[in-house]
Amino acid sequence: MTKVIDFQTDPTKYRHWRVDYDGEIANLYMDVDETGGLFDGYELKLNSYDLGVDIELADVVQRMRFEHPEVKVVVMQSGKDKVFCAGANIRMLGGASHAHKVNFCKFTNETRNTFEAAEADSGQKYIAAVKGACAGGGYELALACNYIMLTNDSASSVALPEVPLLAVLPGTGGLTRVTDKRKMRRDLADVFCTLEEGIKGQRAVDWRLVDEVVANSKFDETVQERAREFAARSAKPSGLKGIELTPLTRTLGEDGSLVYSTVEVAIDRDSGRATVTITGPQDDAPDSTETLQRQGAETWTLRAARELDDALLHLRLNERQVGLVVFRTQGDPEKVAEHEAFLLENSEFWLANEITQYWKRVLKRVDMTSRSLVALVEHGSCFAGMLAELLWASDRGYMMLEEFEGDNRPLATVTLTEGNFGAYPMGNDLTRLANRFQNEDQVARAEQHKGSPIEAEQAEELGLVTYAFDDIDWEDEVRIFLEERASFSPDAMTGMEANLRFAGPETMETRIFGRLTAWQNWIFQRPNAVGPDGALQRYGSGIRGEYNMERV
Amino acid sequence: MTKVIDFQTDPTKYRHWRVDYDGEIANLYMDVDETGGLFDGYELKLNSYDLGVDIELADVVQRMRFEHPEVKVVVMQSGKDKVFCAGANIRMLGGASHAHKVNFCKFTNETRNTFEAAEADSGQKYIAAVKGACAGGGYELALACNYIMLTNDSASSVALPEVPLLAVLPGTGGLTRVTDKRKMRRDLADVFCTLEEGIKGQRAVDWRLVDEVVANSKFDETVQERAREFAARSAKPSGLKGIELTPLTRTLGEDGSLVYSTVEVAIDRDSGRATVTITGPQDDAPDSTETLQRQGAETWTLRAARELDDALLHLRLNERQVGLVVFRTQGDPEKVAEHEAFLLENSEFWLANEITQYWKRVLKRVDMTSRSLVALVEHGSCFAGMLAELLWASDRGYMMLEEFEGDNRPLATVTLTEGNFGAYPMGNDLTRLANRFQNEDQVARAEQHKGSPIEAEQAEELGLVTYAFDDIDWEDEVRIFLEERASFSPDAMTGMEANLRFAGPETMETRIFGRLTAWQNWIFQRPNAVGPDGALQRYGSGIRGEYNMERV
Repeated sequence: MTKVIDFQTDPTKYRHWRVDYDGEIANLYMDVDETGGLFDGYELKLNSYDLGVDIELADVVQRMRFEHPEVKVVVMQSGKDKVFCAGANIRMLGGASHAHKVNFCKFTNETRNTFEAAEADSGQKYIAAVKGACAGGGYELALACNYIMLTNDSASSVALPEVPLLAVLPGTGGLTRVTDKRKMRRDLADVFCTLEEGIKGQRAVDWRLVDEVVANSKFDETVQERAREFAARSAKPSGLKGIELTPLTRTLGEDGSLVYSTVEVAIDRDSGRATVTITGPQDDAPDSTETLQRQGAETWTLRAARELDDALLHLRLNERQVGLVVFRTQGDPEKVAEHEAFLLENSEFWLANEITQYWKRVLKRVDMTSRSLVALVEHGSCFAGMLAELLWASDRGYMMLEEFEGDNRPLATVTLTEGNFGAYPMGNDLTRLANRFQNEDQVARAEQHKGSPIEAEQAEELGLVTYAFDDIDWEDEVRIFLEERASFSPDAMTGMEANLRFAGPETMETRIFGRLTAWQNWIFQRPNAVGPDGALQRYGSGIRGEYNMERV
Repeated sequence: MTKVIDFQTDPTKYRHWRVDYDGEIANLYMDVDETGGLFDGYELKLNSYDLGVDIELADVVQRMRFEHPEVKVVVMQSGKDKVFCAGANIRMLGGASHAHKVNFCKFTNETRNTFEAAEADSGQKYIAAVKGACAGGGYELALACNYIMLTNDSASSVALPEVPLLAVLPGTGGLTRVTDKRKMRRDLADVFCTLEEGIKGQRAVDWRLVDEVVANSKFDETVQERAREFAARSAKPSGLKGIELTPLTRTLGEDGSLVYSTVEVAIDRDSGRATVTITGPQDDAPDSTETLQRQGAETWTLRAARELDDALLHLRLNERQVGLVVFRTQGDPEKVAEHEAFLLENSEFWLANEITQYWKRVLKRVDMTSRSLVALVEHGSCFAGMLAELLWASDRGYMMLEEFEGDNRPLATVTLTEGNFGAYPMGNDLTRLANRFQNEDQVARAEQHKGSPIEAEQAEELGLVTYAFDDIDWEDEVRIFLEERASFSPDAMTGMEANLRFAGPETMETRIFGRLTAWQNWIFQRPNAVGPDGALQRYGSGIRGEYNMERV
């Protein structure tokens, strides 16, 4: 699996999904092309999916928000007759490297979180209309929808058969969503999760696995009726007109470098390091919501978010030897703050809201990126507002102190904005500053400096950066840190960062990434699941996996 | 490592700890005997520890509560000159099986949670008085104390060097306690946790790693002064007189069976199953706190708790092929409820409180036991109060419905008591019923039936058991379940149960077991840590571990 995985697609290229737009309702059909796997060696039978299928779904979900704001209800359904979705493709999982499996699950989790949150964030509610078998990752797709309808026939059921069948866990939030979201009783969840054949009919309602079961003959009609009801009850304004998410400007160099319009990624494979530089806006902030709408995908805030998002995904899947991501910015911090302020002041305007929500998601993607992250606050940089969040999403921040010889860029500063105090909560529902300080007084002290650029000495004193170094020490200190970091075991780094980045409270989202995923990753290392005689290899052979029965 | 590990000890047998009792203050000295390792192949240098050292510590902590209730402050310190504690012994870890490492960490975590909670639960506050190197598990011992004092000299520092030195995580709560308990800033935590040499002096206070740093010359004196201050401020009554924790009555059979006075464990290794039967009290509840004090370790509630606790630890470490634990009870539910009610009604009396707190801990130990757990509510059983908690700590509960032919024991019932609504919170701070239902109305409905025995049909209807079966179905249904369960991959069971058992909120405690431990277990599988060229094997050789630099 060494080909470059591209996270950019558009509806003209879809092989696995299609959408029928019907005013406020969008009917989204999963109709996986068996021969359309991202890699060789497996067929995507029974609407099973691989990363390629999920990249299309992520694109659908993203375009639904930006290109189709008129949509209030999305009905996720199968384009095939007898199956809703059989989940992640097992042969793909059996053949994939550990790192691919883990990153595949992470990306699919992020996509599910996105459509799950679309109702609260943008008034777009996803319904799962389940006809036919809905198993494993298939049921997890449904679980992330906020209403689940099941047809009442002998062939339709919901199931999480991973444990009995494959000796792994449901990897995209299934266990956490049955307890935390569906509030299923834990002993019934135990029964459900060890039952290969799943649950059908009324019992699925009684056990809280689905919201409604409907006779097959009335199913399609009832689904559309329910969709219309939800649309009618939606608080979302009607008749919004979308913008086009035009293709990204992107050049991939032979050395791995990536150049977008506002984001550049330089790769130093020998040092295991990628440097991501974001350039702030050149133009003034839009002067009205009409201007913003007209600028569409070209407006700096959206362009930078899309480019940064794509760069992160590229690094995660295609540059596995890169253990360290360095964030740099260059530009005018005041302009960044103005662009952000325009969005926040016009948050009632759908597109302004969508762009802010998207930054929230991109910044969460940063938090969840299992690479060591460091922000370098150099002279000429623009760590303000959403870009300043990168500083606190990073494991450390280094800042230039006072003038550097021969460097005539403006002195390094950090600018706190309104946005830093609530617009971009982490998965644990804390702002990055609250998560950083775990102390209201320190957050309040920082807040007093909102709006004006903070120079290095004060930034260090306020705890906004880890270290400030002057011209004499900067180069050595940064170099030593980067070299040392690159020498540590990447596994230990991943584990340490997964713990230190998220302090205090947990939410369903952090529990999925922190508890469920960590256990799944453990199981993804164990011979009972992935060994030559393990369940994933033996799947489909008719012979059950051979298990070492020792308990850990 | 096949010898039977015994969790029972007493001060006459200690090789690694000693306590000087000084009225309200106990000075606890860690002075590990290098040659006293539980297994061959390593020396416990520099006050490093293995499971044997921790079994003694757990015994100290337990006896402190029951035998020395006069103690208000425990000062944990080193009995050696230049080192506080170097943490878990690395050669031991390098040689231990994965299962031993995981269970070793789990037990040490439980012990640290116990002395950490002793202040809130019993008014016994632990101070760590750190002189000399205090690294890794050594600093984690200190972190679980509720006040940390550090001597200010060049040889004394606190450190978590696991990541840079050993490519594993601090395994006993270190990462979680620096963020959640000490409220350390996450970027500083990142620096601290990647720094082999640790932090000394005033910086350790500034970074919140310790509470106080004291000049070496005044250290011992200041520590005792602080201990006296804390003791004076304690709300704990003075002059309490302890009871003796007499040796358990226990017979270990060749077939692995264990017979205590109220607990019996039958092992069926071929089926991978242990059956734990608890017999309810024969005698009436004590009629006064004087009687309780006189009964001491003989009183049923304490005897049963100690025996069950020992049985659980034995199963975890010594019977790894046993994947399934079946809980049974036999006896008079009314008597169990009376014994419990006596404790709760006299919770102001120190010993009644201690026994209740101990049940809380034992039941948490059940929750954390990575074996499938099932409760069989048979005729003649006494699932009332604290024993009923076992039913909801289990992954499933099966109950006998109506009369069984030839069985003249009293009909199976479940009895809810006051204790089930608050006395035994889980690690997530929910009662087991609240955790089970995640719905206040359902908890309230159950509560209406408090005090009277609930028969099977109603117990099923209230959701207190998973299934009720009559004479015709019982045997087959239970057998099929037990056989099926024993056929699943134990790894998948461990992961599934670790997720389904703990719904909703997380606390520092559940984060340590759920997030930190799961990541550590993952790393404990990875070649960078445990492979032949990994850091644990190479430790002490002067050659750094060889790492695969691919990021997952």
